[in-house]
Amino acid sequence: MVDLHPRLAADTRSLGETSLCYIRWMNDRRFPWVVLVPKRDGIREWYELDSADQHELLDLMNRCALHLQALTGAGKINIGALGNVVPQLHIHVIARSDGDACWPGPVWGQGQVEPYGEQDEPSWVAALRQRLSYRCA
Amino acid sequence: MVDLHPRLAADTRSLGETSLCYIRWMNDRRFPWVVLVPKRDGIREWYELDSADQHELLDLMNRCALHLQALTGAGKINIGALGNVVPQLHIHVIARSDGDACWPGPVWGQGQVEPYGEQDEPSWVAALRQRLSYRCA
Repeated sequence: MVDLHPRLAADTRSLGETSLCYIRWMNDRRFPWVVLVPKRDGIREWYELDSADQHELLDLMNRCALHLQALTGAGKINIGALGNVVPQLHIHVIARSDGDACWPGPVWGQGQVEPYGEQDEPSWVAALRQRLSYRCA
Repeated sequence: MVDLHPRLAADTRSLGETSLCYIRWMNDRRFPWVVLVPKRDGIREWYELDSADQHELLDLMNRCALHLQALTGAGKINIGALGNVVPQLHIHVIARSDGDACWPGPVWGQGQVEPYGEQDEPSWVAALRQRLSYRCA
């Protein structure tokens, strides 16, 4: 079992998982935001995964993006794999809209996070969990 | 033939192309930076490509990332697909290093672009062009 980096564990909560990835949601009211973390040791770059994992990660990313857009009505999905601060490979899938807190700039490192209450979960999380369960068996 | 968005045409120069993508390099001395633009009309999100194109784009992205890291010695590759300003789907592959102009933040929309002279091309561009030609036939 591969552990989540402590920063990812602190900033995100579980949405689900596949055999390849932890699926997390970012605890920030400003943006519907999914983070995919492959359960592979010591991987920092997408190209370091083996080819099958590279493509499985892409499929999961695109399923998340498609459903996140549909569920939120977002005008744009932002995809990112940065890792300058947290080296463990993780893929951001973020629903963006004209007028959101950082529009049209990127969200990373901008402004102040607005966390949910400890027991709160936005409705899109449950809805995305349900949609992915149809296809992540 | 699909045209490049005018903003992409202005900010980047040609590195090469495949049957799927224009391969461009960002005209900014601060970062070795590749931009991949699928030649498909009206596509804004990765998941809007058909499945074969989605995966071909991933393979090209990962080849560019692998070689860009090797050629530049970058500590980290940043991948991004934002499109909040330029809607035409385009994938950023950026070589980042501790101490670069934006480290550890993202590069998009930060600081001032430092363009090359009209006839200048950084050496990594020719080297990447050569490496990709072995595998982009």
